[in-house]
Amino acid sequence: MAEQMRDGVTRLFRGRSVAVVGASTDPRKLGHEILANILNGGYKGRIYPVNPNADQVLGLPAYASASEIPASLDLAVVVVPAPFVAGVLREVAHKGAGAAIIISGGFREAGREDLEEELRTVVTETGLRLVGPNCQGINYRPNMLCASWPLVTASGSMAVISQSGTVAATLAGWAVDEGLGISATVSLGNQVDVCETDLIEYFARDTETRVMALYLEGAKDGRRFLQVASRAIPQKPIIVLKSGRTELGQRAAASHTRSLAGRDEVFDAACRQFGIVRVPDIESLYDSAKALESLQLSGGDRVMIVTSSGGCGILATDEAEACNLRVPPLLPDVLGDLGEAGLLPTAIVSNPLDLTVAPAEHFEAAVTVAGRHDLADVYLLIFGDPIPGATEVVKRLKGKLGACIVVAYLGGGEVEKAERLQMHGAGIPVFPTPQRAIRAIRDAVWVSRFRARETMTSG
Amino acid sequence: MAEQMRDGVTRLFRGRSVAVVGASTDPRKLGHEILANILNGGYKGRIYPVNPNADQVLGLPAYASASEIPASLDLAVVVVPAPFVAGVLREVAHKGAGAAIIISGGFREAGREDLEEELRTVVTETGLRLVGPNCQGINYRPNMLCASWPLVTASGSMAVISQSGTVAATLAGWAVDEGLGISATVSLGNQVDVCETDLIEYFARDTETRVMALYLEGAKDGRRFLQVASRAIPQKPIIVLKSGRTELGQRAAASHTRSLAGRDEVFDAACRQFGIVRVPDIESLYDSAKALESLQLSGGDRVMIVTSSGGCGILATDEAEACNLRVPPLLPDVLGDLGEAGLLPTAIVSNPLDLTVAPAEHFEAAVTVAGRHDLADVYLLIFGDPIPGATEVVKRLKGKLGACIVVAYLGGGEVEKAERLQMHGAGIPVFPTPQRAIRAIRDAVWVSRFRARETMTSG
Repeated sequence: MAEQMRDGVTRLFRGRSVAVVGASTDPRKLGHEILANILNGGYKGRIYPVNPNADQVLGLPAYASASEIPASLDLAVVVVPAPFVAGVLREVAHKGAGAAIIISGGFREAGREDLEEELRTVVTETGLRLVGPNCQGINYRPNMLCASWPLVTASGSMAVISQSGTVAATLAGWAVDEGLGISATVSLGNQVDVCETDLIEYFARDTETRVMALYLEGAKDGRRFLQVASRAIPQKPIIVLKSGRTELGQRAAASHTRSLAGRDEVFDAACRQFGIVRVPDIESLYDSAKALESLQLSGGDRVMIVTSSGGCGILATDEAEACNLRVPPLLPDVLGDLGEAGLLPTAIVSNPLDLTVAPAEHFEAAVTVAGRHDLADVYLLIFGDPIPGATEVVKRLKGKLGACIVVAYLGGGEVEKAERLQMHGAGIPVFPTPQRAIRAIRDAVWVSRFRARETMTSG
Repeated sequence: MAEQMRDGVTRLFRGRSVAVVGASTDPRKLGHEILANILNGGYKGRIYPVNPNADQVLGLPAYASASEIPASLDLAVVVVPAPFVAGVLREVAHKGAGAAIIISGGFREAGREDLEEELRTVVTETGLRLVGPNCQGINYRPNMLCASWPLVTASGSMAVISQSGTVAATLAGWAVDEGLGISATVSLGNQVDVCETDLIEYFARDTETRVMALYLEGAKDGRRFLQVASRAIPQKPIIVLKSGRTELGQRAAASHTRSLAGRDEVFDAACRQFGIVRVPDIESLYDSAKALESLQLSGGDRVMIVTSSGGCGILATDEAEACNLRVPPLLPDVLGDLGEAGLLPTAIVSNPLDLTVAPAEHFEAAVTVAGRHDLADVYLLIFGDPIPGATEVVKRLKGKLGACIVVAYLGGGEVEKAERLQMHGAGIPVFPTPQRAIRAIRDAVWVSRFRARETMTSG
């Protein structure tokens, strides 16, 4: 049974054949959009639309029911009205499916606990693994399967697991705009079966995923969540945005997904103890996932700030101090070497190091000197103007110093947009303000310290 | 003298003729870029490039020195090496100029206090009003004068005054991308003459400006700053991002613009007392300016949250409670009317009101009912999906309820981008996350309460 169950989760993501039950010919319907996204998302497996009123949908032959599909199935995506879902699941299980994604709403969240109970019965009887109901589906890029919306095809290494379809879509949208892409988005819905913990378990083993970003309103089984997460964290950082911080928020969460949030301070303390990064808002969830996706830090908390904008250097310094990061002063030997590095006479040689209106190469010269003196654990480069050639410089620095280079790029118009895409392509995280960069660095440093401590303890 | 001085500031912005001293034929030089931006920015006055080594620059006849310009001047933009600046200023003053913008660096910030002292002498002798030196210039859209970089031509009603050219360029860049535009950006530089307070005085009277966003490292004259600001605030909200919050940040600020920041808590308390909104980071500066640019609130702090995304509704509720805004519950008569408003059976009718996957018209129905019952002072509409027609709905709601409609739009891909531009065109502020929307609402509510209290006290 356990083996079959695990197989079910694998088929959810890796299935080679999928039925879309409720595939619609009407472009305004979700049953149409999802089939279109599976087709346009590049899925290489077999696709079977099910629609009793159409001969074909989007050019594919349609079947009146799942039973009539002339082959065995791995996965079904279900978009039919709630009262029909249980019946459909029995049919697809009979056709060999190991997993199903139930997009349809109208269950517990609409007062129909009875219909949801029926789904639970089907799970027990058939061993099917279910995602949903009342969810926005799954997009899994390693299998090029976008059984969700909107259509996202850019492949990256961030897996987004979310009790809100919108939060998942938002992170994916930003990751696409910024040239990062995603490995997966999973919208959890009512979690009648597959929950956030099953997904952490899956993505911990998924070679295409380097970091997990979660939006939660509560954990289905807090103890198992923490156990599974703590086993995953040595390889894969986990960042969590949990709502219900306040009493009013908790009440709203209870109405939304009936999550039993528990006391917020308890969750907070558990995160700190088990190495889970907890963030306060949607942008921090994205930022910290971005940082942890690519940075490889040593556990140290010293930050060197090199900037072409004096003001942004100060804002970064303020934020670093507020985040308990160290901004070490430059000792005389470093000052001496920097004095010979060919910086502008207007440069303010300190930490933060204000290069003033300098070419990209001055960033390289300064960081190289600092690196030689092992001055910092993380280097924040702030490009406060359109500075062409910045990408080449940060790539070379990453080659020399390793994945400890972070960029804030702002005020650079079109040059900035182009350079950001290139830097992300090279695995260097870029943030839109110095403050967001520093807060993401804080979280990455915290994870690296946590890991270093764990290694020491277990070693 | 005072009249002449004020005239000088006016000519800084409204001048009908401008000399660019140091206009370069080399596209890599600032003296080229600034002339190009004045030309391409739509300036309708006369433009005189000064360059002793060229007959013309960018198609305009060039003059060997300012003295040879065959007409009188209002304004000069100076981009020559620091030791030549004072001489140039005497020349342009002689040609009738009332103001100058000194882009050139190499003064106090580079240890040349002597050269800066010389500028002070010229100011005293000639009555010229100076912006800079060591600054990124001025862009003033009412006069279509972009004596700065990058080129920004989109006209709006936000004036950005900044001790960091990059922070100003960043805000302007966002305002352009989001279809808002700016009325002005002023980069202050070393403030040898014109300071943030002179500019607050100017923009308080400027009919094209509705809100001022300032980045400061310190105020030149704290007492006058507060006096002038408090006179401006009844008409024009002022939002300030001040760096040097921490000791290390203050030290960095002292190196950057030699600002004497004073104790941070004192500045903080003064802001609260005088009605200045103080924000913690660059994005908040932009967000709060955006909110205060268009919202007209009554002083009340009740927020009604209507959403298509349950998760985002909860995140907004959490943030509202953290911001001390009230999210009032729905009383029976409101619940009754909402029950007849044609919402989906899946809707969760509370505050936050989760419409679930609903068309834009359901937002209108819900907010109309809430408005009829005077349920809230601000309405936050969260569009958590691509929802076509959202703009028409929020425009109609603004027509009915006034400028108290705020939007968070996320996860909507291209539809979201198009709708955001249209909503901004209609004067409705749109934020990328529910949390940023709520924090901006908090600041707008605070200003409206401050004003209401002031009116009562003085009335």
